[in-house]
Amino acid sequence: MKAFTSLFVGLALFTKNILALWPIPHSYSYGTSNLEVASHGIHIENCGVSTDILSKALIRYSDLIFSEKFVNPVDYNAGKLETDGTISALKVNVLTACTDLDVDTDEFYTLNITSTGEASITSNTSFGAIRGLETFSQLISYNYGRKIIKNVPISISDKPSFTYRGLMIDTARNYYSVDSIKRTMDGMVYSKLNVLHWHIVDSQSWPIESLFDPQLYIKGSYAPEMVYTRQNVLDVISYGKERGIRVIPEFDMPGHTYIIGLSNPKIMSCLNTQPMWTDHAAEPPSGQFNIAKPEAIEYAQNIVKEYSALFPDNVFHVGGDEVNRKCWEDDPYVKDFISKNSSLSVDSLLTGFYSNIYDTISHVKKTPMCWQETLLHTNFTVPKDTIIQVWIEPEDVPTVVNKGYRVITSPYMYSYLDCGHGSWLSNDPAGNSWCDPFKTWKKIYSYNPLVNITDPEKQKLVLGGEVNLWSEQADETNVDKLLWPRAAAASELYWSGPYMSGNTTLRNLTEVSARINEHRFRLLARGIDASPTQPLWCVRNPGMCDLPPSKPLA
Amino acid sequence: MKAFTSLFVGLALFTKNILALWPIPHSYSYGTSNLEVASHGIHIENCGVSTDILSKALIRYSDLIFSEKFVNPVDYNAGKLETDGTISALKVNVLTACTDLDVDTDEFYTLNITSTGEASITSNTSFGAIRGLETFSQLISYNYGRKIIKNVPISISDKPSFTYRGLMIDTARNYYSVDSIKRTMDGMVYSKLNVLHWHIVDSQSWPIESLFDPQLYIKGSYAPEMVYTRQNVLDVISYGKERGIRVIPEFDMPGHTYIIGLSNPKIMSCLNTQPMWTDHAAEPPSGQFNIAKPEAIEYAQNIVKEYSALFPDNVFHVGGDEVNRKCWEDDPYVKDFISKNSSLSVDSLLTGFYSNIYDTISHVKKTPMCWQETLLHTNFTVPKDTIIQVWIEPEDVPTVVNKGYRVITSPYMYSYLDCGHGSWLSNDPAGNSWCDPFKTWKKIYSYNPLVNITDPEKQKLVLGGEVNLWSEQADETNVDKLLWPRAAAASELYWSGPYMSGNTTLRNLTEVSARINEHRFRLLARGIDASPTQPLWCVRNPGMCDLPPSKPLA
Repeated sequence: MKAFTSLFVGLALFTKNILALWPIPHSYSYGTSNLEVASHGIHIENCGVSTDILSKALIRYSDLIFSEKFVNPVDYNAGKLETDGTISALKVNVLTACTDLDVDTDEFYTLNITSTGEASITSNTSFGAIRGLETFSQLISYNYGRKIIKNVPISISDKPSFTYRGLMIDTARNYYSVDSIKRTMDGMVYSKLNVLHWHIVDSQSWPIESLFDPQLYIKGSYAPEMVYTRQNVLDVISYGKERGIRVIPEFDMPGHTYIIGLSNPKIMSCLNTQPMWTDHAAEPPSGQFNIAKPEAIEYAQNIVKEYSALFPDNVFHVGGDEVNRKCWEDDPYVKDFISKNSSLSVDSLLTGFYSNIYDTISHVKKTPMCWQETLLHTNFTVPKDTIIQVWIEPEDVPTVVNKGYRVITSPYMYSYLDCGHGSWLSNDPAGNSWCDPFKTWKKIYSYNPLVNITDPEKQKLVLGGEVNLWSEQADETNVDKLLWPRAAAASELYWSGPYMSGNTTLRNLTEVSARINEHRFRLLARGIDASPTQPLWCVRNPGMCDLPPSKPLA
Repeated sequence: MKAFTSLFVGLALFTKNILALWPIPHSYSYGTSNLEVASHGIHIENCGVSTDILSKALIRYSDLIFSEKFVNPVDYNAGKLETDGTISALKVNVLTACTDLDVDTDEFYTLNITSTGEASITSNTSFGAIRGLETFSQLISYNYGRKIIKNVPISISDKPSFTYRGLMIDTARNYYSVDSIKRTMDGMVYSKLNVLHWHIVDSQSWPIESLFDPQLYIKGSYAPEMVYTRQNVLDVISYGKERGIRVIPEFDMPGHTYIIGLSNPKIMSCLNTQPMWTDHAAEPPSGQFNIAKPEAIEYAQNIVKEYSALFPDNVFHVGGDEVNRKCWEDDPYVKDFISKNSSLSVDSLLTGFYSNIYDTISHVKKTPMCWQETLLHTNFTVPKDTIIQVWIEPEDVPTVVNKGYRVITSPYMYSYLDCGHGSWLSNDPAGNSWCDPFKTWKKIYSYNPLVNITDPEKQKLVLGGEVNLWSEQADETNVDKLLWPRAAAASELYWSGPYMSGNTTLRNLTEVSARINEHRFRLLARGIDASPTQPLWCVRNPGMCDLPPSKPLA
């Protein structure tokens, strides 16, 4: 038995994909024997605390293992493998009944498979067990009429580097069916991502039911069949919870709110300025809450109240990005209001707006989350418990933690999955966009969320990060291809970290490439249309489609 | 009745998508009445010459019109439209029985619909009728429980600007199922593209059956189920022919042929040079025919003989791109051969290779087609009937026509649909590729195939052009999203031309955008997963997502 307790495994070994797991566990060892999986599959036995979430997960993975016939593309001509025994059962020991899902959720697990086929997963929570079950399922491959687990005995001890590993979808620029959102969560659990950041609404549409103002979605959704009912939302939340995925809703304000003007024009400013929408918004149509009107503030508070009650997660994202001052400076009502109150300004009105909103969030006992501008580009004193999402520059992360705030990292140059497809403005012949180029999985993978943060206490403020799919040029037609496998690059980045043991040596991209390729094909086999990253010839021949040493391509 | 006989229609009119056809016909007029399509659909009556191809097309379009329930996204809230009569029949008059499919095929048609519902298509060939049927089908939209044709009377007279309007797929870097190739041809006929340039084989795989050397595909295909049998090929060809789509096969040589070395290593040079594959190829794995060996030349001739017999099209594409001299300069056999024959050189051997290949093409009575390098970067005297495909710079088009050769245009910066997704080399962290950025539909649309060619006789040498999807990062998983609607931008470019009547004013991109958006949604409704180009809000509100006048975005 060869044993590796550190993460360093040479290329020659890894190109055989001995443990082709995604994301790679923190610590593992393995041997040289092979086990045959019993023809009836794996009986997964619950030997610890039982929870409803765990019970469902055991059934789900038992079914998946039984039905899946996956061959790693590298093993296409491996021949029939000899086996040294059989495996028919897996014991799962969960130590606590806790099923709270938040940034403190314990996802640690150990997974052991002996050479005689005794297998067990131990974890502190049901969610840790789910991570272990996913790892277990990835150890199984199909070989000439039976399933096998190679390279036993296997011993894995695993936990995430970051407890927030997110993926953002935007269902406002274009609509996504509930099925496509669930399929996206399938990809997340297969990749050990654990937060769905749901950017539900934006200027273009309001696709979610509202109780306090039904006109909001009746006028604001793209179509009656393009509305998430409250029941749909609860269904998505429960689907996520069963997989250890939090659903954090975002209701972006005071900008990005044109759509509210369809039902409530009187509380809005700069509604659909044309053709110079650039004066008032980052993209058409322009429109922001009229922050000089108490009715607008009250309306925004009603949004917080209604949806913070609907979404059980303890974090509520209130947006706050790309607020446009000129929208208000040009608004006759705002101008008049300020001229009559010399102590006021657009900035003081904005601070007042935020004070009311954040007070409401506090009142409903939620933790606020916002885009970085609220902290870095307004005079508002952001409550200390707020989670700040950095989307602009990587350098903004240390800036925020140095102010003592917790951070979610998603700098566009490493995280925006929509970028690189050029301008979507109808008549823009140049065709480029501000966030070009396309972010390859390697680019995403190369990000270090802790860059320029050396103080371990400050590092703890970086809760994790996410990748973001803005939907100006995306909908459920192409969502799988845009998300996968690139979102999985982020999942290994935030689960395993980009470094090998000791945090000094970056992982070898040739080895990582072989594994992400396998993961892509596994996602495909599981019904997610992940894009190919290379010719199949390269996938089958790891190391042969590398950049030549010391000679960059022209 | 408003009548427009020129192509100029103001934006205000067009944003209502009065005739939202793709590609836009060369000449048309329309009125203000609406007709209701009979509930049993349209009886399409053949009143002219009958051909098998036409009969099948009549059934196909009759079924499509009956089953399709398409609403233009711009008309989402149009309300129930008043109709002034019904339409239940369409008469098709084809004047000749000719079903030859080549660069001279006549695709002209006229389409007339009177205000009383008399409809007719007249064309010289069955293929012209197919183009007219497609246009007719696009005139129909669904409105509150019935189908209607708006804005009758309609009179259309239409023909392509270029008779070669192609789309290239690459089934070697990654494999495509026959179904996905047929679906691609569906998109082509819906868009009036008429040539499938099938880049079948390349260094990575040989996915096509061979009679003269079965080892070629047994060893060279990715898997037994990833082989196009001769029957599959005939099926694809016949599927295309029924839709007026030529299938031009490409067997690229002498470069891009590593895969032949798996079965025939002795006739090859520089097989899979590693890790410095850059010395011998544009991408891994390297490998070229050993042009110093008569057996290699004979083998290449056998390829031409076998596949020119299988593919009925009169054009046979022999590749010839990215030939690497150093591959041969470093080959011991070639070096030795040249050292013993002082009159020889790598260039003279290459000329000899091409002479033999082109003689064979001539012998089998085919028209050769090749990439531009054979003409512009070798000493070989390319036969005058050869069609040259320009893929590098737009300026190479006038260079080629000035030498008196016919041209197919596909300069990568306007035509390569795979570009913009970064480097696919496993360990390339920079992540960019030589052909970045992504080519938006507007970029593709902005190309002028006749740029810098003023002589009308020289202009005639430009037969048309194509868009190309190289498949290093594409397979049938993402092919629809990469092809559509961008390939349709090329279809209007080569069918209608980028200019309005008079060839002086470029079409208004806002108007074009509204139509290509409709076309995207129609493709989607017809089973092709075309990508969204904009938020649905922009699609529904033409002109409101434009670049502001005279103020480029930062």
